[in-house]
Amino acid sequence: MKLNVGILGATGAVGQKFVRLLEDHPWFTVTAVAASERSAGKRYRDAAHWIEPTPMPEGVADLEVQLCEPGLDCDLVFSGLDSSVAGTVEKAFASAGYPVISNAKNHRMDDDVPLLIPEVNPDHVDLIHRQTYSDSGFIVTNPNCATVGLTMALKPMQDAFGIEAVHVTTMQALSGAGYPGVASLDAVANVVPYIGGEEDKLETEPLRILATRTGEGPHSSVTSLSIPISAQCNRVPVIDGHMECVSVKLVGSPSLVAIEKAIRGFSSPDEISVLPSSPASCLEVDHSDSAPQPRRDVHRGDGMTVSVGRVRSCPVFDARFVVLSHNTIRGAAGGAILNAELLAARGLLPRRLA
Amino acid sequence: MKLNVGILGATGAVGQKFVRLLEDHPWFTVTAVAASERSAGKRYRDAAHWIEPTPMPEGVADLEVQLCEPGLDCDLVFSGLDSSVAGTVEKAFASAGYPVISNAKNHRMDDDVPLLIPEVNPDHVDLIHRQTYSDSGFIVTNPNCATVGLTMALKPMQDAFGIEAVHVTTMQALSGAGYPGVASLDAVANVVPYIGGEEDKLETEPLRILATRTGEGPHSSVTSLSIPISAQCNRVPVIDGHMECVSVKLVGSPSLVAIEKAIRGFSSPDEISVLPSSPASCLEVDHSDSAPQPRRDVHRGDGMTVSVGRVRSCPVFDARFVVLSHNTIRGAAGGAILNAELLAARGLLPRRLA
Amino acid sequence: MKLNVGILGATGAVGQKFVRLLEDHPWFTVTAVAASERSAGKRYRDAAHWIEPTPMPEGVADLEVQLCEPGLDCDLVFSGLDSSVAGTVEKAFASAGYPVISNAKNHRMDDDVPLLIPEVNPDHVDLIHRQTYSDSGFIVTNPNCATVGLTMALKPMQDAFGIEAVHVTTMQALSGAGYPGVASLDAVANVVPYIGGEEDKLETEPLRILATRTGEGPHSSVTSLSIPISAQCNRVPVIDGHMECVSVKLVGSPSLVAIEKAIRGFSSPDEISVLPSSPASCLEVDHSDSAPQPRRDVHRGDGMTVSVGRVRSCPVFDARFVVLSHNTIRGAAGGAILNAELLAARGLLPRRLA
Amino acid sequence: MKLNVGILGATGAVGQKFVRLLEDHPWFTVTAVAASERSAGKRYRDAAHWIEPTPMPEGVADLEVQLCEPGLDCDLVFSGLDSSVAGTVEKAFASAGYPVISNAKNHRMDDDVPLLIPEVNPDHVDLIHRQTYSDSGFIVTNPNCATVGLTMALKPMQDAFGIEAVHVTTMQALSGAGYPGVASLDAVANVVPYIGGEEDKLETEPLRILATRTGEGPHSSVTSLSIPISAQCNRVPVIDGHMECVSVKLVGSPSLVAIEKAIRGFSSPDEISVLPSSPASCLEVDHSDSAPQPRRDVHRGDGMTVSVGRVRSCPVFDARFVVLSHNTIRGAAGGAILNAELLAARGLLPRRLA
Repeated sequence: MKLNVGILGATGAVGQKFVRLLEDHPWFTVTAVAASERSAGKRYRDAAHWIEPTPMPEGVADLEVQLCEPGLDCDLVFSGLDSSVAGTVEKAFASAGYPVISNAKNHRMDDDVPLLIPEVNPDHVDLIHRQTYSDSGFIVTNPNCATVGLTMALKPMQDAFGIEAVHVTTMQALSGAGYPGVASLDAVANVVPYIGGEEDKLETEPLRILATRTGEGPHSSVTSLSIPISAQCNRVPVIDGHMECVSVKLVGSPSLVAIEKAIRGFSSPDEISVLPSSPASCLEVDHSDSAPQPRRDVHRGDGMTVSVGRVRSCPVFDARFVVLSHNTIRGAAGGAILNAELLAARGLLPRRLA
Repeated sequence: MKLNVGILGATGAVGQKFVRLLEDHPWFTVTAVAASERSAGKRYRDAAHWIEPTPMPEGVADLEVQLCEPGLDCDLVFSGLDSSVAGTVEKAFASAGYPVISNAKNHRMDDDVPLLIPEVNPDHVDLIHRQTYSDSGFIVTNPNCATVGLTMALKPMQDAFGIEAVHVTTMQALSGAGYPGVASLDAVANVVPYIGGEEDKLETEPLRILATRTGEGPHSSVTSLSIPISAQCNRVPVIDGHMECVSVKLVGSPSLVAIEKAIRGFSSPDEISVLPSSPASCLEVDHSDSAPQPRRDVHRGDGMTVSVGRVRSCPVFDARFVVLSHNTIRGAAGGAILNAELLAARGLLPRRLA
Repeated sequence: MKLNVGILGATGAVGQKFVRLLEDHPWFTVTAVAASERSAGKRYRDAAHWIEPTPMPEGVADLEVQLCEPGLDCDLVFSGLDSSVAGTVEKAFASAGYPVISNAKNHRMDDDVPLLIPEVNPDHVDLIHRQTYSDSGFIVTNPNCATVGLTMALKPMQDAFGIEAVHVTTMQALSGAGYPGVASLDAVANVVPYIGGEEDKLETEPLRILATRTGEGPHSSVTSLSIPISAQCNRVPVIDGHMECVSVKLVGSPSLVAIEKAIRGFSSPDEISVLPSSPASCLEVDHSDSAPQPRRDVHRGDGMTVSVGRVRSCPVFDARFVVLSHNTIRGAAGGAILNAELLAARGLLPRRLA
Repeated sequence: MKLNVGILGATGAVGQKFVRLLEDHPWFTVTAVAASERSAGKRYRDAAHWIEPTPMPEGVADLEVQLCEPGLDCDLVFSGLDSSVAGTVEKAFASAGYPVISNAKNHRMDDDVPLLIPEVNPDHVDLIHRQTYSDSGFIVTNPNCATVGLTMALKPMQDAFGIEAVHVTTMQALSGAGYPGVASLDAVANVVPYIGGEEDKLETEPLRILATRTGEGPHSSVTSLSIPISAQCNRVPVIDGHMECVSVKLVGSPSLVAIEKAIRGFSSPDEISVLPSSPASCLEVDHSDSAPQPRRDVHRGDGMTVSVGRVRSCPVFDARFVVLSHNTIRGAAGGAILNAELLAARGLLPRRLA
């Protein structure tokens, strides 16, 4: 029997992606959709300006949109809320006993909230036991859409060698700004060398995700690493797919062969690779000259595979490479769903209702 | 009386830009156009697939396209030749007594050839006196379209502090690849993280341009600096304007205030600022959050101004910033024309013909 | 001595275009800028999110933005107001004695308001004498951005033969929707086959502009023609320039040669061709296979020339062709300025203030 | 047991689409790939510059590319050949006994060749019995990529009322020009109002497809209708999906209600709807204001559904509407595969080899 899930912020761009990715999900069924007062009371089909490239799932289209308040008829909620409201709304749901699987930034850096990439730091899940919202409610978050690709690419290097410094310049897709998001006159045939708040996230979130958890259960703790990361973020006229040019300085200046071997050797832990949304390969290295590219490669692993290309030595640091990840799937709704699957597999998502 | 100029590779994208920028030039008149056998013998209007956004200048439209061989009726030549032929053709013209103002890469790193940005290293002009092609012929080059913006931005920092290391990631316009250049299916809504040969140029050319000339006349010499530069080059769906995200490590780790002051204090030498193609400001610092942008800012100074924005501190190095320059004007034909103007002002472009 | 002009809606996209086109205008100086309450009281440089590709004119940047209420210190006003407010605001200014040169749609079809393209129906100016707003105030309008190209191309055919029916399909630029306008996720690599209200304007405005004025001064009158026009309007990812594929049925089914001759023979009346914003050629016929194109040809005549191409016979009607016009210059601010120039040349724009 | 198929022109854009669409096809297995001399002898993975957004199918990647000459080890061939060679090569294969399912234009208008859209004119298949290439070889073609959407939309109107005249303006995707195809400098932020040969195809092919077959087997015959169609074709910066704005004049000027009812009532014949590549709905009517759009709707029915929107009355003719179809799936490889499925279902594709 499937778990019933609610979607907070269901009419927005991330909310719609949740709706689409959860269509036919083997473990979850969408039974509740919630949004702002403007949408509440309408059918989802009337409230949402549907922007996904496949038709709106029939089962959800007829749901009545509710307010983002506890009382939704479901076992857990996914949050695609805007950060202007996510902070308090998510707390309210956790306090009311709901597991909250959030894509919002608000609680990502909370001491007791896992900032989770299942393939990278599944043991951080333990932090939920420190949370005191209610008996059964808690919050789990996934990182910023640009953080996830960088962090997955850095993980094997951190494990094998240790990282000393990182330079990263991003070229981020328009869908990362939601809908309506970037004005077309700013986007077409243009680059905008600034995305509010993004560089800060990219310079801090990986340090929390890559950190080692200490203690267990209610005593678990994560202290961010203190590696300097310099991020420069740009918006480019691409639909889906964040590209990142990365340069890393590693402990002991390992050879390029050793670095490539480390990246290539990285794979999902067994616990993760069996989850429904886990791709065949979570980190794929491409050897062709001019890969990865958003239009060509962003759909690998149904948007859950992170692609790495152009691994080569760096005249300044030790290695350079390009990372591509799907910003609204791996970097948002898909990442959150994988988080929920990990929690479900560990028995942390009990049925709430009789 | 104006100097007569010939254009080598006149039907190509760079050649067309020469034709357009030289329309109504106060010092130069196009009297000869040369291209490959396929075009030779035709009128320019029939030979060139005109891609400039203003009509083909009438005076040039009726010229007969000639072969790229010495004998052209002109005082000097501009070369917009492809690198596959530029090496030997330019030598042949220099040997036949023509000053060759080249945009091609072939002779840029020759010991006796100035690789010139008039505002940065005008004294490198002296190297032409080492050349032995002929009594009056010589070769002068301008740098790669991505080099020029980076180098102009680095110049004041090198002068004020000294540079220890540079990271640069470029987002380069489609026009940089010429015509037909990049296939639209590779360009639209995409990023290609590779431009053949480009990273190497960006890692070496600035080191020659920023170097100090020693000796004079036939004894002049330039030895490239040995600063490590790490360049990652990307093609993005922009028409004109190369964007570059730069991070620099400086000697003595100066304050951001001092760095900004240095950039802001940079201006054209008087000898340069009076040249016809010199912009009012060669290096402009923009303080708005999200500038510079190709579509908004690339036309500053008629495409000859280099824009710098987002100057800020860097968690890894000392400062970060964004540079924008017009790749086919400042970075190609316009840069070459400014070089020729400097030579003319110094009396190095005598009239060849009675 | 120049006339002082105010700009209503000065911070919007059309308002900014007015500001830029009026920089260095020989007859007009911008002395007042007005916008909504949100902007009023700020300096223009702070109130406007400047989107033009050249720097904001210094003279205007320091003006204080005022409310859109009579009392502005100027001899006439240009209106770039949104249609949600233009109706009443423009009336208020006309009633207060200001000539109002409007780009808004609200009063275009009023019986006593000229809907004006100077090269097409300059005699419609007479309608202002029917207006009773005040002694000196009146309203003059220019047509919708897609109407102007179509109408100018139809004018010589209407004069030479008479038009029986028109099919037109437009491909309209993003700038036609203002700023922020179309969301980039709707624009990039996409076509939106709908523009609210646009088809109706395209099917009615040309019929008023092409109509013959009867009577004079306060007795002048214009009755729209009753030619069926079928318009299908699309938004395409182009920055500037509305393309229109047109097919026309003409009285007497003239030969293609006769039709081409008519188009080619069309030129500005002498009264118009001497105005400062009048292009050398108001209607240019291009014979190349694949012209006109927005990126290549939209800047002809500084955006005031309408380009016609691919004139050929039609299997269903008599002739087909493609029209391109610059939607924010000829189709908006530039068209309005040309209207004002015509009025000024006729002595209809007296100095209001001592 | 599956039929073995060869692909002619396998390395090109259409050829690659065949390879991708035939991966996991229930009836066909790719056993041979053929291309020009440049590719022959190489492995497919090395010969093809793969541009599809999913990885190259492993089974095909290792095939050796052969020359386009009879002798290929397969039961039938799909032809994605360029028209410069398709004419003779396809004849050679038919003469050698191969069924040739072609996407090329060369034989489309041959008297004895079916120009086939299975949902529209399945009975035209009979024409193959007039062909005399060999005992078992024949040629079947699918229409031009822009023809198929128009023709499917016209079919129910032709059946219900009869068509008197058609105006169509297309906005065609870049992928329709193959690879490298349109230069990005012609494509980005631009419209090209010309596609060589396209208007002629759009004005003639529908008339053959919509015509009634007379006679049977070797006596079957198809005479094109003589309805005037006026086509204006444009290239727009869209990746996949041809949009067409259509206006139709119908016999008896039926009401819009009747026209909509006719379109809505159209569905695949039972014989077709059971074929593997047949979409759930071959012609879908969308009622929203601004549909269909390429990016949103082109993937309906895995690219095999034709979308119709904005059905409304026309001031000049009887009805107007917008059609969208996937140009490289329904309009090329997918259409050809559906043709082959129909032939297979009718027993017209016998196993050639023991």
